[in-house]
Amino acid sequence: MPEQRTEIASLGEFGLIGRLSEAFENTRPDSITGIGDDAAVIDLEAEYGLLSTDLLLEGVHFDLTFVPLKHLGYKSIAVNISDIAAMNGVPGQVTVSLAVSNRFSVEAVEELYAGIKAACADFRVDLVGGDLSSSRSGLLISVSVFGKVAKDKIVYRNTGRPNDLLCVTGDLGGAYLGLQILEREKQVFLANPGMQPQLEGHDYVIQRQLKPEARMDVIFELEEAGVVPTAMLDVSDGLASDLLHLCSQSSVGALVFEENLPIDEQTYLAATELNLSPITAALNGGEDYELLFTIRQDDYDKVKNNPKISVIGYLTDQAAGAKLATKGGNHIPITAQGWNHF
Amino acid sequence: MPEQRTEIASLGEFGLIGRLSEAFENTRPDSITGIGDDAAVIDLEAEYGLLSTDLLLEGVHFDLTFVPLKHLGYKSIAVNISDIAAMNGVPGQVTVSLAVSNRFSVEAVEELYAGIKAACADFRVDLVGGDLSSSRSGLLISVSVFGKVAKDKIVYRNTGRPNDLLCVTGDLGGAYLGLQILEREKQVFLANPGMQPQLEGHDYVIQRQLKPEARMDVIFELEEAGVVPTAMLDVSDGLASDLLHLCSQSSVGALVFEENLPIDEQTYLAATELNLSPITAALNGGEDYELLFTIRQDDYDKVKNNPKISVIGYLTDQAAGAKLATKGGNHIPITAQGWNHF
Repeated sequence: MPEQRTEIASLGEFGLIGRLSEAFENTRPDSITGIGDDAAVIDLEAEYGLLSTDLLLEGVHFDLTFVPLKHLGYKSIAVNISDIAAMNGVPGQVTVSLAVSNRFSVEAVEELYAGIKAACADFRVDLVGGDLSSSRSGLLISVSVFGKVAKDKIVYRNTGRPNDLLCVTGDLGGAYLGLQILEREKQVFLANPGMQPQLEGHDYVIQRQLKPEARMDVIFELEEAGVVPTAMLDVSDGLASDLLHLCSQSSVGALVFEENLPIDEQTYLAATELNLSPITAALNGGEDYELLFTIRQDDYDKVKNNPKISVIGYLTDQAAGAKLATKGGNHIPITAQGWNHF
Repeated sequence: MPEQRTEIASLGEFGLIGRLSEAFENTRPDSITGIGDDAAVIDLEAEYGLLSTDLLLEGVHFDLTFVPLKHLGYKSIAVNISDIAAMNGVPGQVTVSLAVSNRFSVEAVEELYAGIKAACADFRVDLVGGDLSSSRSGLLISVSVFGKVAKDKIVYRNTGRPNDLLCVTGDLGGAYLGLQILEREKQVFLANPGMQPQLEGHDYVIQRQLKPEARMDVIFELEEAGVVPTAMLDVSDGLASDLLHLCSQSSVGALVFEENLPIDEQTYLAATELNLSPITAALNGGEDYELLFTIRQDDYDKVKNNPKISVIGYLTDQAAGAKLATKGGNHIPITAQGWNHF
């Protein structure tokens, strides 16, 4: 081990990725992008290939006391598909590597794979390989996905321009509040195992947490409508954090209107019950796996009647920064409170 | 959790993979193969894409008391490249997902990435993405690799035919004996921390264990010599286990000549010191990451003078089974004693 010791927590996830990435640069003509977008881009001559990967660890990313294995399997695929969607691509193949401790039976692993299979069917991808290993500490899932996109249809996150309209799919904050509800009921259960969980009226936000969907439906609808976003990424860390990535990589600012943030009724309800701000959940909750994208103003008519898409603001000059226009008329800076597992 | 409980150990790794795979079949025209070969094959029109993935877990696949982080980083890439080599392909891009506990410093992670970088340079691949997470139990590395191969040059493991010559690259058993030497010295050290490790004369086998190479060199030499193997896979679980995969998937038998098994002098030396059979190490040791392949008899002249290639036998009819012709003239069945982590 080297002598100097810098704690990983002092850099955080993005800081460490940045530091490690510095040492690497692409050397191959078919490596179109390196580290830094939702998926890596590989030149296949006729089109681009897309490669992305995600890791899910028990105790860090999920808690099996309230996450059913089948849902977990589904989610492990969906969150990877979401990265391909975020490049405006179509996923084709996935690999799944699994490490399991002897706490898990064959039947438990089969439950997990039933969820993986359901996701493969929903998103029309094939499971083509993987790895299987024992683990000394619970369950671990590593999924990689390969997809393709036409060269003139690929969408990066660094190509937004001032005055582009800022759009988001679905609604925000639900997955975070679903998790808070599940955590609350877990604590109640731990304190008093005889109590029934109080999940009534929270089915939507709980589903948002347990079984997120990748928005391939919107990708296909944009294609049909003849819209190629100018920039796009998926909302995994929270709208604020992901918008700041878009702004920083595109060298732009943004103005988001609080009143335009799409928030489901159940998200408001759960927020009220938990004494949390629904706006904070929408901005910083994370795990929504919706798409955040920008379009040219000329394309507004092509999306305005799509109920799955909300126009929440527009891009501005970089100097203006990323701001939230509140209902009260104030412009306040958007700051990332995203996830830091370290 | 489902009610029935079958222990994973009762099926083993390959048994569980078989059981899980049954539920999946490819649905896409561009998914050329599914689970079952070294890498998945994806149709890119002009050529084939290859996708493979491997998981390395601390305490299961490596022991950091004697594995330097830099070597581990190198090995994590090399073992994935080996899967692409085994399809006669050329690797292009890798993704690395890492989970680390707070036991590790930024500097330690940088050591690991220095090894990853060295392997990327040696094998001419680009690191294009990945994931980074905290872990509650040590270090975990998941690598995926993407490569390409001309459609008429791809080599599967199910296409060997009787009378094809059976070839192996490099030498066998070294990685296993290197591990045994390192394990022995670890025990000595634990019993008496003042003792110096006795590694003299074992540098080659230790290197075989700590820093295996993917045999891309041989892939390029076969290409130059105009040889396309009839079947190929890499020797990761041990010659016996991997040969049985080739035989079963190609529906053939094999006859291997003990006297033709390539075994390094240091492997003999370590085996003698440890009172182990060098032949058993060569057959069942695993982790050599050499290539096991078959060629048409007509191609013999093109490989016979290549010092990196040993012809160790030939394929026979399936009914004859896989046999070892011993120096004493006996034909004994080859059985897999490969790895089972469960």
